[in-house]
Amino acid sequence: MKTKTVKIGSHLEIGKDFVVMAGPCSIESLEQFENTAKCVSSLGVHMLRGGMFKLRTNPESFQGLGKDAYNIAKQVKNSIGLPFISEVTDPRQIADMYEVVDMFQVGSRNMHNYVLLKELGSIDKPVLLKRGFSGLIKEWLLSADYIANGGNENVVLCERGIRTFETATRNTFDINAIAYIKENSSFPIIADPSHGVGKTSLVAPIALAAAVAGADGLIVEIHPEPEKALSDGYQALDFAQFEELMMKLPQALAVNDRTLAKL
Amino acid sequence: MKTKTVKIGSHLEIGKDFVVMAGPCSIESLEQFENTAKCVSSLGVHMLRGGMFKLRTNPESFQGLGKDAYNIAKQVKNSIGLPFISEVTDPRQIADMYEVVDMFQVGSRNMHNYVLLKELGSIDKPVLLKRGFSGLIKEWLLSADYIANGGNENVVLCERGIRTFETATRNTFDINAIAYIKENSSFPIIADPSHGVGKTSLVAPIALAAAVAGADGLIVEIHPEPEKALSDGYQALDFAQFEELMMKLPQALAVNDRTLAKL
Amino acid sequence: MKTKTVKIGSHLEIGKDFVVMAGPCSIESLEQFENTAKCVSSLGVHMLRGGMFKLRTNPESFQGLGKDAYNIAKQVKNSIGLPFISEVTDPRQIADMYEVVDMFQVGSRNMHNYVLLKELGSIDKPVLLKRGFSGLIKEWLLSADYIANGGNENVVLCERGIRTFETATRNTFDINAIAYIKENSSFPIIADPSHGVGKTSLVAPIALAAAVAGADGLIVEIHPEPEKALSDGYQALDFAQFEELMMKLPQALAVNDRTLAKL
Amino acid sequence: MKTKTVKIGSHLEIGKDFVVMAGPCSIESLEQFENTAKCVSSLGVHMLRGGMFKLRTNPESFQGLGKDAYNIAKQVKNSIGLPFISEVTDPRQIADMYEVVDMFQVGSRNMHNYVLLKELGSIDKPVLLKRGFSGLIKEWLLSADYIANGGNENVVLCERGIRTFETATRNTFDINAIAYIKENSSFPIIADPSHGVGKTSLVAPIALAAAVAGADGLIVEIHPEPEKALSDGYQALDFAQFEELMMKLPQALAVNDRTLAKL
Repeated sequence: MKTKTVKIGSHLEIGKDFVVMAGPCSIESLEQFENTAKCVSSLGVHMLRGGMFKLRTNPESFQGLGKDAYNIAKQVKNSIGLPFISEVTDPRQIADMYEVVDMFQVGSRNMHNYVLLKELGSIDKPVLLKRGFSGLIKEWLLSADYIANGGNENVVLCERGIRTFETATRNTFDINAIAYIKENSSFPIIADPSHGVGKTSLVAPIALAAAVAGADGLIVEIHPEPEKALSDGYQALDFAQFEELMMKLPQALAVNDRTLAKL
Repeated sequence: MKTKTVKIGSHLEIGKDFVVMAGPCSIESLEQFENTAKCVSSLGVHMLRGGMFKLRTNPESFQGLGKDAYNIAKQVKNSIGLPFISEVTDPRQIADMYEVVDMFQVGSRNMHNYVLLKELGSIDKPVLLKRGFSGLIKEWLLSADYIANGGNENVVLCERGIRTFETATRNTFDINAIAYIKENSSFPIIADPSHGVGKTSLVAPIALAAAVAGADGLIVEIHPEPEKALSDGYQALDFAQFEELMMKLPQALAVNDRTLAKL
Repeated sequence: MKTKTVKIGSHLEIGKDFVVMAGPCSIESLEQFENTAKCVSSLGVHMLRGGMFKLRTNPESFQGLGKDAYNIAKQVKNSIGLPFISEVTDPRQIADMYEVVDMFQVGSRNMHNYVLLKELGSIDKPVLLKRGFSGLIKEWLLSADYIANGGNENVVLCERGIRTFETATRNTFDINAIAYIKENSSFPIIADPSHGVGKTSLVAPIALAAAVAGADGLIVEIHPEPEKALSDGYQALDFAQFEELMMKLPQALAVNDRTLAKL
Repeated sequence: MKTKTVKIGSHLEIGKDFVVMAGPCSIESLEQFENTAKCVSSLGVHMLRGGMFKLRTNPESFQGLGKDAYNIAKQVKNSIGLPFISEVTDPRQIADMYEVVDMFQVGSRNMHNYVLLKELGSIDKPVLLKRGFSGLIKEWLLSADYIANGGNENVVLCERGIRTFETATRNTFDINAIAYIKENSSFPIIADPSHGVGKTSLVAPIALAAAVAGADGLIVEIHPEPEKALSDGYQALDFAQFEELMMKLPQALAVNDRTLAKL
């Protein structure tokens, strides 16, 4: 099915040429986010990612800087000049975040949070909708409709691995879903290989596989020093690892006559 | 592990004697809710259930009466004289619902909605926490901690079936989870056989099995005319079917020297 | 659907009154099997179980005594006077085992082994067909047809837990499957709570739940000293635990007006 | 981990350069197999596949030509000059099949059939071991050890999709498993995208993704007229579709500096 493109800011379009979003799992400090942003920007990334409100299974885990990250995010995205995506976890955050982000991310835990989806349907900024831990593709598309039916058709899907019996990897990246969505839906779809496999050394092969299977982009967790990350360091790429992935991407895209989006 | 009891209203306690909650999936009208409430009350039920805000996978499906159900609920629970439980789907509903419900229900789609859980942790009414579609028992207990850590320790768990490869039944009721929770957690646990198996004719056997495995109670969907229900009629019991279940319950509880809670 | 009964030996019938099979996971020695057999027999069990050929995931694990167990099995079943069931893992064992067993057990790993099923379809001894790790109910019934279509309609199904994302218990006992099979198939169905939950302390609640949900019998792993068992000791009941289960069974069966089969 | 190569016949090696096996799901007739073999051979395939003994869930489905296919297989493989792989479903077939096949295939339903695996461990022809429907990677590697421990270390793994809650595709192809096995095992691994996704139009993207993720080869179902196939036609590629896949493969392999094996 023909993919409808989703505009981010003034000149980026998801669903056409391949788009890469990268950055840390969480914004931890100005220094950490700025360093990471500079690095990924120099490697040709199209959008910055960085969590401000983190949904953590364990109530004792680091929950993100929250509103304290707003200024850091604004400062860095302006100095770098790239659009910024971050996760929204509460409808009451939308008004404030609207000033900070260029795209709202809905996390896996909220794919079924229809209250949140409906409110995102009434704004004019694009939404990245991650698949739930056990979200059927059918349900995922209906969740996208919750947003689109409200008038905001700028929805991009994100495959990030599903929950299965297998425990050797954190999740099971559903590569079939990429190919299936391209055939059966007009929403663009990108891949999150970081959560999809959950182990640094396996992120690049899954990222490249997703690109070859038809994904319209990637969202990747990067950290200058993964072993010191406050969240999910075991699945973050360091700068050298990310650079190697970015070097291989054009060749993978060429298999299907695609290219990286221009900056 | 010894179960801590959770008080509902002035004299009902969950975690001690066996408690039955029943009522329609959704409150559809004063007449429908009142008829159902009278019936289940006459059969010895301890609490009324009835959905006001429904989370439906399909945005086109009936979404509940919303705030229009508040008056119906108040009127019926006062005339019947039983405590009332209903699902909360948005933290901003808590203040108003507080006047109407005696127990807040968190649905499966919100087991990971930590924003909602945290706010329920700061109030003084009990919470029924359903297990997510693919919620690990470990995660479920951490979700309960999100509420309890806020100061509200009145949390009751509810097993309602998990998502597996099997498609012959709507969900797979995890009977193991009942026995496991009784052994490893001090939160009371009740069973929702209606969603757990998803088919009217199979609800009673699963309900009785859960009681024998150690559950502290049941929550069951009842409808005067299931085939006319606006939601989930295929898993609702009619009055006669529910009466038969209530007749068998005492004998099932006796296997473990338990009894129905007194009214 | 009306259940067709399956005759074991001269006067036992599965599918009518409730039948209990018990014994060790593996026959380890004459002494161990005889002691266990005497004990379970004195507690009212209808059939002895004991593995001779074990299918173990790890090639280094104990694989059973094999043919060396034939004489032990014969000797004990004759002195005790109860029918004997044991697992067949290779079609070439059928001829020899025919002299030793009263019922052939097909294990979970072989639910899809149609070569074995077809050969069991051509003999005149009953077969217990365990559900595969991820066997759909639909596939399970078709596997039963592989046996029945060959002329041997004496097939009994055995629910023993399925593989899901949950890791707190060894398997997820599918209690729904018990109720579903009773409604939709004429094959009798028994429950294996030992594998179904995989932890000694949780076996009895699951066994009783299965009985209440409609199972036609149980197969339970017993060991005089579970901590010394050569296989699966963590899910075996000792004699005292098994006695307690047997004491509760009649009351659980009474919920549905059923009784234990007479000896 | 460094991959050990497995020799097929005199000059083909799996685990080094990329190997493609292709052919019909089942050998249906001399004409059908010969036509398909000629076609795939002309497109640069390294090995012929063709089922003789089919394990079908439904006992009424076509079960393969059985021994009647031996002569067809011999005749075609000799005239084409390519090695031949076919599934063995019974240890008693090994002796006869040994004359016909260059590699024995163990299907998903037999990953846990240790009796069969052990006997394949005592021969000197290579074995392709498919992953079970719900085979943990850990169990799969232990099944490979059942063969290798017998002395036959020529084992190649085959990822073919696992069973999950998702029903939009036949199975969920576990792309993570490809990357994981390359890192953690020395057995070569190939991909079966036909079963992995189960739908003709999605086979090529999954095949290419597997190649990029690190697979050592492919096994693909081809049929001259898929809509007339006696088994699994809905997932077979026709000649034109297969040609397109073969055209894209070298570019996908180049991403990781790999090439197709020479003929």
